[in-house]
Amino acid sequence: MTADGRRPAEAERRSPTPAAPHRERPRPHEPQTAPAAASFQEMWRELAPVGRHRDSGGYRRYAWTAADADCRAWFRQQAEGRGLTYEVDRNGNQWAWLGDPAAGDAVVTGSHLDSVPDGGAFDGPLGVVSSFAALDELRARGAEFARPLALVNFGDEEGARFGLACVGSRLTAGQLTLEQAHRLTDGDGITLPQAMEAAGHDPDALGADPERLGRIGAFVELHVEQGRALDLSGDRVGLASAIWPHGRWRFDFRGEANHAGTTRLVDRRDPMLSYAETVLAARREAELAGAVATFGKISVEPNGVNAIPSLVRGWLDSRAADQAGLDQVVGGVKKAAREYAEAHGVDLDVVRESFTPVVEFDHALRDELARILSCGSGGSGVGGGEAGLRVPVLGTGAGHDAGILSGSIPTAMLFVRNPTGVSHSPAEFAAEDDCVAGVLALADALEGLACK
Amino acid sequence: MTADGRRPAEAERRSPTPAAPHRERPRPHEPQTAPAAASFQEMWRELAPVGRHRDSGGYRRYAWTAADADCRAWFRQQAEGRGLTYEVDRNGNQWAWLGDPAAGDAVVTGSHLDSVPDGGAFDGPLGVVSSFAALDELRARGAEFARPLALVNFGDEEGARFGLACVGSRLTAGQLTLEQAHRLTDGDGITLPQAMEAAGHDPDALGADPERLGRIGAFVELHVEQGRALDLSGDRVGLASAIWPHGRWRFDFRGEANHAGTTRLVDRRDPMLSYAETVLAARREAELAGAVATFGKISVEPNGVNAIPSLVRGWLDSRAADQAGLDQVVGGVKKAAREYAEAHGVDLDVVRESFTPVVEFDHALRDELARILSCGSGGSGVGGGEAGLRVPVLGTGAGHDAGILSGSIPTAMLFVRNPTGVSHSPAEFAAEDDCVAGVLALADALEGLACK
Repeated sequence: MTADGRRPAEAERRSPTPAAPHRERPRPHEPQTAPAAASFQEMWRELAPVGRHRDSGGYRRYAWTAADADCRAWFRQQAEGRGLTYEVDRNGNQWAWLGDPAAGDAVVTGSHLDSVPDGGAFDGPLGVVSSFAALDELRARGAEFARPLALVNFGDEEGARFGLACVGSRLTAGQLTLEQAHRLTDGDGITLPQAMEAAGHDPDALGADPERLGRIGAFVELHVEQGRALDLSGDRVGLASAIWPHGRWRFDFRGEANHAGTTRLVDRRDPMLSYAETVLAARREAELAGAVATFGKISVEPNGVNAIPSLVRGWLDSRAADQAGLDQVVGGVKKAAREYAEAHGVDLDVVRESFTPVVEFDHALRDELARILSCGSGGSGVGGGEAGLRVPVLGTGAGHDAGILSGSIPTAMLFVRNPTGVSHSPAEFAAEDDCVAGVLALADALEGLACK
Repeated sequence: MTADGRRPAEAERRSPTPAAPHRERPRPHEPQTAPAAASFQEMWRELAPVGRHRDSGGYRRYAWTAADADCRAWFRQQAEGRGLTYEVDRNGNQWAWLGDPAAGDAVVTGSHLDSVPDGGAFDGPLGVVSSFAALDELRARGAEFARPLALVNFGDEEGARFGLACVGSRLTAGQLTLEQAHRLTDGDGITLPQAMEAAGHDPDALGADPERLGRIGAFVELHVEQGRALDLSGDRVGLASAIWPHGRWRFDFRGEANHAGTTRLVDRRDPMLSYAETVLAARREAELAGAVATFGKISVEPNGVNAIPSLVRGWLDSRAADQAGLDQVVGGVKKAAREYAEAHGVDLDVVRESFTPVVEFDHALRDELARILSCGSGGSGVGGGEAGLRVPVLGTGAGHDAGILSGSIPTAMLFVRNPTGVSHSPAEFAAEDDCVAGVLALADALEGLACK
């Protein structure tokens, strides 16, 4: 878009197969999906077995584990195989540059490769794989870049291991300090610094990276939709409007461990009862507010069949369209939980473990992308005809690295249709045609933003 | 009690400090607690640190682990230090014999050394330590044995690791087959045979041991009370009448894993909701039936904060004074759980993992012990005066090895006062005076049953 001060020649020198600067673009009516589709399929096949659990069929790609290292090695291989400049930033995020990283006003795309426990194949990896495939598509088109382009894999987006989501982008954006990051601990008592060090990274380098963010003009994250809005509207690709405010609250119900067979009901201080009542209260409050609330994780001590628990620790995940709605849900659940706990002689502590306020994606960038995709101005005609693509604009309850970075740089998100809406599950799915449509839309977006 | 066919001389030869056969017994009014108290205190101190968790203060002595091996080494050392004949039976239970094991009509006492997760110090070990201390007391009294005496440590009573309680005594009594035992698996996927083999035992030898049980005339298990009946009645020691019928049922609620932030409430099949409703139903049903019901153990998949669970597995422990009451509770909980599951589109499987019908302890043996203890016929006057001990008779909701064996041989149980009623918890407690009173009562019982 902005050609001032760019050095495309230098950028293109890094590519082993530089596109001829003046190669003619194919006509819109010619078959154009071949490069993107073939490249996408090959990468998808390579990545599919990494970290997949034999029994569940789900992915267990947790930050700084062996599966994560395999994913990262794959990213590096893809980057270097394309002649991109590979680097790892101070927070462990991986970058692959086309053009001079120091030139400024870069266009960046990417997502993450880690997963929730027994997660699906698409949440995260679809965005990373599509980034490489979109670059392949642009090179096949003979695109000439006027701005530096970077592909990124953000570390520990899901927070499955250390309990906090988007650790890589939060650190970079200054939303998580080195001290806070050093206190993160996994279920086995291993701290984040220990895990990073074991994976060959320097945990003392963690921290805000404004210099890096200052060199980025736009970040576009492609992601599988985690709902059925596109399926219901009959569209392959959509644009994000906003991310609902969301957070995680830990509820610690502390009672008294005792023998399940011999302790009279009236003598019990059983925290499982208050927990159960609170789970049901969360559902009621979410229904009332038109929001969502979930208790999906629990930890019980001593967790013995014949022992009344001493501790039931449950995590509430809640999200709403606006802050008032979220406050209503979480306030209501906390109030109910306190009453239940008191009635059972149980102590309750509630800790907010993470919180992300509402994120409105950059309006100018979103409008620009909508124009590029819907008018076919990127030149590829991905909609299958001259009219280009109809691109619905959707809100979402899911947090993303793009949401974290939106406070620092203009960000946007592309969603790819999810026919069942299922996500964070081995059953998560997107049709290959839709994935390829996503790649082409991303290629159009990058072309429109970064190319001459 | 029965002198026919016994060989006390041979039995006593095994003792390194044989009591003089005709040594006069001390008078009832002389201080008599010294040997029992000193011996009890010393053993209690030795055993206290084994398998104790640094943070919780509770015990984690699970079957066939390192902590269990330490407990077993301690038992062997105590047995051999007293010149008893030490042996391990085909099911891994430890025995220490005074007199000829083959002579028949033996009097046996003991309990178990393993624990629930973060259990207390008394449940199990009090009975084993008291057995050795009672023997020391009898030797100090100069008792002459007319029947063989054995002290026993039953393996895996709590079932904390493999999910089934009283594995050692169940196998011996023929209530658990080799095939069933070989299918037992711990949370890490290690099977019972693998665990036993790693601990140096032959898992192919497991099975019923009628020959061994045929040599036992009476089994008396001393145990800390797991309720407050003795505290409320003001007695140090009680006798068991019956064990309530009890069992464990596993409830598997299977829903659909999905993203906690993006899945509309109406699209969810969240098994945590049905689980929570079932926990509360169990409490209601138990209240109605005057019984107890507990969900103390849970396992959730994938157990991620931002994932609706695919599986919530909860274990119901329920016990009632009679079978009709138990049927009412468990039937009611199952019916409610099915309705809740159906309402949420969740699949439910209920599996009965273990069950023990009501156990009435042998009436003749109980009456005999009541007579010995209350009349001071054992000669020690443990009640602190000539009148002997008032011995209340109590029912209990807890399962015990004595309950398992009661189907094969005459069994009885002695309970020691628990001032708080707390059990299966680091806070489990009994006063040392009461423990020593328990040792003396057990010594009286053994003297009355086994001595000339």
